[in-house]
Amino acid sequence: MKACGLVVEYNPFHNGHVLHARESREKTGADVVVAVMSGPFLQRGEPAIVSKWTRAEMALNGGIDLVIELPYAFATQKAEIFAKGSIALLESLGCDSFCFGSEDGKIEPFIIAHRILSENSAAFDAAIKSAMDAGNSYPASAAQAYRSIIHGDAALDLTKPNNILGKEYVSAALSNGYSIRPYTIQRVAAGYHETKLSKDPIASATGIRKAIHEHQELHSVSSYIPQATMSGLEQYLTHYHALHDWEMYWSMLKYRILSSSLTELAGIYEVEEGIEHRMKKMANQSSSFSGFMAALKTKRYTWTRLQRMCVHILTHTFKEQVIHNDQPAYIRLLGMNGRGQEYLRSVKKGLPLSLVSKLSSYREQDIDMDLRAAQVYALGLPEPHQAALMKREYESPVIFK
Amino acid sequence: MKACGLVVEYNPFHNGHVLHARESREKTGADVVVAVMSGPFLQRGEPAIVSKWTRAEMALNGGIDLVIELPYAFATQKAEIFAKGSIALLESLGCDSFCFGSEDGKIEPFIIAHRILSENSAAFDAAIKSAMDAGNSYPASAAQAYRSIIHGDAALDLTKPNNILGKEYVSAALSNGYSIRPYTIQRVAAGYHETKLSKDPIASATGIRKAIHEHQELHSVSSYIPQATMSGLEQYLTHYHALHDWEMYWSMLKYRILSSSLTELAGIYEVEEGIEHRMKKMANQSSSFSGFMAALKTKRYTWTRLQRMCVHILTHTFKEQVIHNDQPAYIRLLGMNGRGQEYLRSVKKGLPLSLVSKLSSYREQDIDMDLRAAQVYALGLPEPHQAALMKREYESPVIFK
Repeated sequence: MKACGLVVEYNPFHNGHVLHARESREKTGADVVVAVMSGPFLQRGEPAIVSKWTRAEMALNGGIDLVIELPYAFATQKAEIFAKGSIALLESLGCDSFCFGSEDGKIEPFIIAHRILSENSAAFDAAIKSAMDAGNSYPASAAQAYRSIIHGDAALDLTKPNNILGKEYVSAALSNGYSIRPYTIQRVAAGYHETKLSKDPIASATGIRKAIHEHQELHSVSSYIPQATMSGLEQYLTHYHALHDWEMYWSMLKYRILSSSLTELAGIYEVEEGIEHRMKKMANQSSSFSGFMAALKTKRYTWTRLQRMCVHILTHTFKEQVIHNDQPAYIRLLGMNGRGQEYLRSVKKGLPLSLVSKLSSYREQDIDMDLRAAQVYALGLPEPHQAALMKREYESPVIFK
Repeated sequence: MKACGLVVEYNPFHNGHVLHARESREKTGADVVVAVMSGPFLQRGEPAIVSKWTRAEMALNGGIDLVIELPYAFATQKAEIFAKGSIALLESLGCDSFCFGSEDGKIEPFIIAHRILSENSAAFDAAIKSAMDAGNSYPASAAQAYRSIIHGDAALDLTKPNNILGKEYVSAALSNGYSIRPYTIQRVAAGYHETKLSKDPIASATGIRKAIHEHQELHSVSSYIPQATMSGLEQYLTHYHALHDWEMYWSMLKYRILSSSLTELAGIYEVEEGIEHRMKKMANQSSSFSGFMAALKTKRYTWTRLQRMCVHILTHTFKEQVIHNDQPAYIRLLGMNGRGQEYLRSVKKGLPLSLVSKLSSYREQDIDMDLRAAQVYALGLPEPHQAALMKREYESPVIFK
């Protein structure tokens, strides 16, 4: 059986994701589509709108055969580490290919970019450093450095989030000598962060979340999501009485920032350059997460980097707990259908990593960062619904569709 | 000028406290009455109903001339340490006497008890240990051990909280060779923890808080508190939109317990004997502070000891930060009237400790445990009122009546 891997967040799963799964299957000729999906906290440093279980279920209903979790140590990270962890998992699961959405839908520029940047890595790093020293954020500096090295038709637009991620996926595969083969398809319609909804049935996840938040009801987005996503969201509201956003964690984040010493804050992963002083000051002055972020933001830090710092503070994740060059140590299974199960059986014996399908049968200390993230995520819910979500984490078997 | 010191919490200041101040002044012939008062968190491991500033103001309106703060490291502690810190502060302020309420109003039994227990301390400690080994709490064991050593008329009833505290006040003064002299007056009417209100104008602070909580309005307690206390509570509600209780800190406590590692929890002051495992389990299952406490309680631990552990977890106070044998390093001034000010002037030059009247003029690291306690206390308030209370902590001058 041939498998194609997708790197996803499904926040939430929408019509564009259905297309991505279908086209990836066609383009790569795969029998099975495997999604490696972020857990409770996402790459941009945000809580997912609903739990990973509900999002996995939406994915299985929308054309995915097997869903595994990208561990916290790789999920809430800059593009490079996020990509490294995701592609490593897909490779270890024996996927023949992976397929991502990009602006132009051509794979060659990504491969060329990888080759040229590898050959000029010293010059590239120096150009990034010099742009950062001028006070620019990392992504802006990287895009600028890239333009200074690669010109012409082959050049990728590295100001586009899809292209940044795509470049890292391809690099992760090629620089590690993986056998997994990169593919890309052109993204349809909506931009990655497009916040306005259109008449097309395709909208960005950002736009969908924003519409749900603004209208305070789900039906405003019904034309952009499959029926199964709508039911998933409705059921989540029925069971847990809330959809997740940063504001529901504000009181915990504020409490953590203000009750921690400066030394402790400085020990948190990604908290650097003395920003802990600024965080304490702004947290004391702010009465909402959005107010806090607006007060904290400077040109030096991207919004997402600041949000990731906040997630690590919230989950109490220290520098020494996160080791960059490591690859994931386990494959956490979230859900599958018959085809996914068949594929898993076929590769199970040769797997280089432990397959975790039930927490109770795995050593907790090895997965404790994920458990803590799941725990903190559950605490955003109103009482008494927190315990039910944690119970799901510990007791539920893998979803089978 | 002769000064008499009182050890108080004023949670809130009520008619019984007016009597205590007046009778202490008469009995000791003092010109000035000085109160050393717990700050945001109290001896029984609870947040005070209103801030120390509001409580100090109530006290100044009710017959107290000078109010100083008992630092957190002594306030949220078992009776022995609480008493040691309080009496040390009164001694350092040059008070001639201190006067506490007791069941019988006679000072001799306290002095005799101190002498006999000092002479038999090994036997006393052994008797306490053996009672604790049988699974009893510390206070129950101490009362039992005391009865095994001292009998007859001189014996104190050490099951009464007032007598436990009184014994520790007297011991603190006598065993350190202080010049401050102990006095006691008989408590009027209501028991220390009496929760039912009577027709008398005297009710316990516990009863008053309970009535406010149950009736959700202040007027049910108007006959038990001075008018100034009523205004203080009303103004607090107007400014900060809440009165404090443990439930408003529940989500923070739960978050702290569940997001901390077992090792970190075990490092918190007073968390011992592996209770961190039980705390994690019960916190996960509970959806309110009262539910959590009910689930956590065993015969081995008193309710107040468990609550004190919870306060230390909430304020993130580690074992190595609290050094038992130390005495307070500073005198934090909260408020005074003209007489209090005159007294302070008369003793100021010879003070053995720093007098802190404004935070900005004191080194923060020396007072950081108190600052953290004040900060966490403020976070119980609804947004956006938290910052206002912290501002009060940093910027406000001492209250002058």
